[in-house]
Amino acid sequence: MAISLAKKYQGKLEIMPKIPIRSYEDFALIYTPGVAELVKEIQKDENQSFELTSRWNTIAILTDGSRVLGLGNVGPIASLPVMEGKALLFKFLGGVDAFPLPIKVSDKEEFIQVAKAIEPAFGGINLEDIESPKCFFILEELQKTLNIPVWHDDQQGTAGAVLAGLINAIKITGKDKNSKIVLMGAGAANIATAQLLIKYGFNPKNMILIDKEGPLYAERGDVDSLMFKHPWKYELAIQTNSERVKTIEEAFKGADILIAASSPEVRIDKKLIRMMNKPIVFALANPIPEIYPNEAKEAGAVIVATGRSDFPNQVNNSLIFPAVFRGVLDSRAKKITDEMIIAAAEELAKYAEEKGLREDYIIPRMDEIEVYYRMAAAVATKAVELGYARLKLSYREFLESAKERILRARRLSL
Amino acid sequence: MAISLAKKYQGKLEIMPKIPIRSYEDFALIYTPGVAELVKEIQKDENQSFELTSRWNTIAILTDGSRVLGLGNVGPIASLPVMEGKALLFKFLGGVDAFPLPIKVSDKEEFIQVAKAIEPAFGGINLEDIESPKCFFILEELQKTLNIPVWHDDQQGTAGAVLAGLINAIKITGKDKNSKIVLMGAGAANIATAQLLIKYGFNPKNMILIDKEGPLYAERGDVDSLMFKHPWKYELAIQTNSERVKTIEEAFKGADILIAASSPEVRIDKKLIRMMNKPIVFALANPIPEIYPNEAKEAGAVIVATGRSDFPNQVNNSLIFPAVFRGVLDSRAKKITDEMIIAAAEELAKYAEEKGLREDYIIPRMDEIEVYYRMAAAVATKAVELGYARLKLSYREFLESAKERILRARRLSL
Repeated sequence: MAISLAKKYQGKLEIMPKIPIRSYEDFALIYTPGVAELVKEIQKDENQSFELTSRWNTIAILTDGSRVLGLGNVGPIASLPVMEGKALLFKFLGGVDAFPLPIKVSDKEEFIQVAKAIEPAFGGINLEDIESPKCFFILEELQKTLNIPVWHDDQQGTAGAVLAGLINAIKITGKDKNSKIVLMGAGAANIATAQLLIKYGFNPKNMILIDKEGPLYAERGDVDSLMFKHPWKYELAIQTNSERVKTIEEAFKGADILIAASSPEVRIDKKLIRMMNKPIVFALANPIPEIYPNEAKEAGAVIVATGRSDFPNQVNNSLIFPAVFRGVLDSRAKKITDEMIIAAAEELAKYAEEKGLREDYIIPRMDEIEVYYRMAAAVATKAVELGYARLKLSYREFLESAKERILRARRLSL
Repeated sequence: MAISLAKKYQGKLEIMPKIPIRSYEDFALIYTPGVAELVKEIQKDENQSFELTSRWNTIAILTDGSRVLGLGNVGPIASLPVMEGKALLFKFLGGVDAFPLPIKVSDKEEFIQVAKAIEPAFGGINLEDIESPKCFFILEELQKTLNIPVWHDDQQGTAGAVLAGLINAIKITGKDKNSKIVLMGAGAANIATAQLLIKYGFNPKNMILIDKEGPLYAERGDVDSLMFKHPWKYELAIQTNSERVKTIEEAFKGADILIAASSPEVRIDKKLIRMMNKPIVFALANPIPEIYPNEAKEAGAVIVATGRSDFPNQVNNSLIFPAVFRGVLDSRAKKITDEMIIAAAEELAKYAEEKGLREDYIIPRMDEIEVYYRMAAAVATKAVELGYARLKLSYREFLESAKERILRARRLSL
């Protein structure tokens, strides 16, 4: 079905003129000699590239194809259809022109080099489907050195969606930032989620990350070696699990919140959920959640979220990345920081709260499009506040332009 | 004027879905989980990336901004508006989805490395505005190593257009492949033109290249040093100017053909033209030709061509690159070779001949759109013949698909 669709349309994307072209003569303005004026303006001030070209709305979806969906390391060429699909989501939900750019590189240094080289063409870079911990090294270096916003959707996108869901879930259940949280899986998503939750104020002492070796804690045999291999995970090993819990059962016992973002083969048994304390359960593996909502509910879960659209409470990065990039692009931001992701998550949570929170409505649905421009405006406003915006408008102005751009993209996609 | 247009439209390009999207549910096919099917097909056979994604019609316009128009080394960011304009020409004249990709690199090795890395995203690479001789090193290496067609438009595009014009100009004037040819300027364009003319059968012994030091010949003092600095120019120094002509006046004396593709400050005096033999004069500098058509005619030129659309006989690479890429993309070719460029030039020349050659009509005008699909079909057919085509159709089928794709792009650009 997907194959016949792909063959029928011969791919998903095309590059279209935004300027009407009526005859070859128009190229005297669009191309040479007229274009020389634009070149000279940008030579005087590189920031003019955001005003005089499509750069302000164009991002790269950059990947080496090393961890694509649940399929693993398929390489750059085979990852292309996924990146094309992602580009459509960027356009449809965020009005963002995203170009799929799978690259063939031998290591993280070469990835970083290519990413730095392509900076002039883009207003932002969305890293995608890169294996952990390589993705952490790449992201940190690029965020430090580039003058455009860079993020890895499998880290910050997922973390932002989880935070939004959690803000409302703890409100409904009366839990708080000192709740005991089990994070099942310690890949890109859950490491980034733990980092963002801590940044937001959740108490790291009461968090337990579980990887293939079991619960992570400072004295675990492999932790020293993480210091260089994966310093972000090392840092969490030091900060979290202050009780030095060593078994999965102990970890789940009395825990308030479960965030599972693990590999496809991991299953969570009902009896583990039963050991928890009227828990909030986020089972985010796609398409098969680590535990199905009905099972989790039977075992005592008060709120269940998954990554799927056919169950209530879909916690999915598609709720985050289109709006965050809309916001950073509209403000011509130089960075994406955790503060901006938190601003997006808070706005996402607030929208659901305004609509009326329920156990099966802790987070807006993807089709509640209004929330996307509200989030975009919140992110853009935060970028201005933090001093990263090249374009400083009011919340109201950002809201209007984001709305117009997103609604236009939806109209054109029909 | 160009600036207000750019500000009004906020750049020239956008990325659009080719697949209609009606609701978020459509993404189950377009994105996950449906897309996994496509990934698996491409994992089995990488060539399927040309059938199941937009890769078959997508090329990079890759530049380091080191020689942009007549503006020189403006760098990658300032080159962006030029690359955007070029992308519009690709779409409007060739139906090709071309993505502007100016890159920030420190040397030719890094340029080559980035170009190799991005191969998975593209069906072809159009190198653009790269200074000489760097462009020759880059082109040769990429043509050797990549499995998609690569060319440098400032080399092969210009050479192809010159060849087409010359085929008809010698027909009208009764000159031939042994005619004495002066090439004024020895940059990317004229080096590539000399190479292509020789490949086509023009006699190198009767060609004289003139650079800033005067006529090039084997024993000239700087030629030995070219062996490593610029082996392509070295090769021409050995092959051409068998009479070892040493002054510009001697070079022009009795010459049949002048091809000037020089830097903006070079002027050609009428008295040099008067020394020639009822000459064909191509004065291709833009926007100011090395000598204006009326002056050249007064001095005895029989046929004059320039790079400008407001004089007759516009010899411009826009007549070549959209159709050549249409042809290589439609045949999913792995290479662009000189034979394919010659096929395009011959078809371009033939079209004008069918319409009726005149001294002021040696080459079709840009608005004679029919010639583009005929050239595309000629190139695609040649790719099949040479064994470089992944898709082997008949001339008739290539003609139909090129026509449909080019006419669709024009309709959509209005």
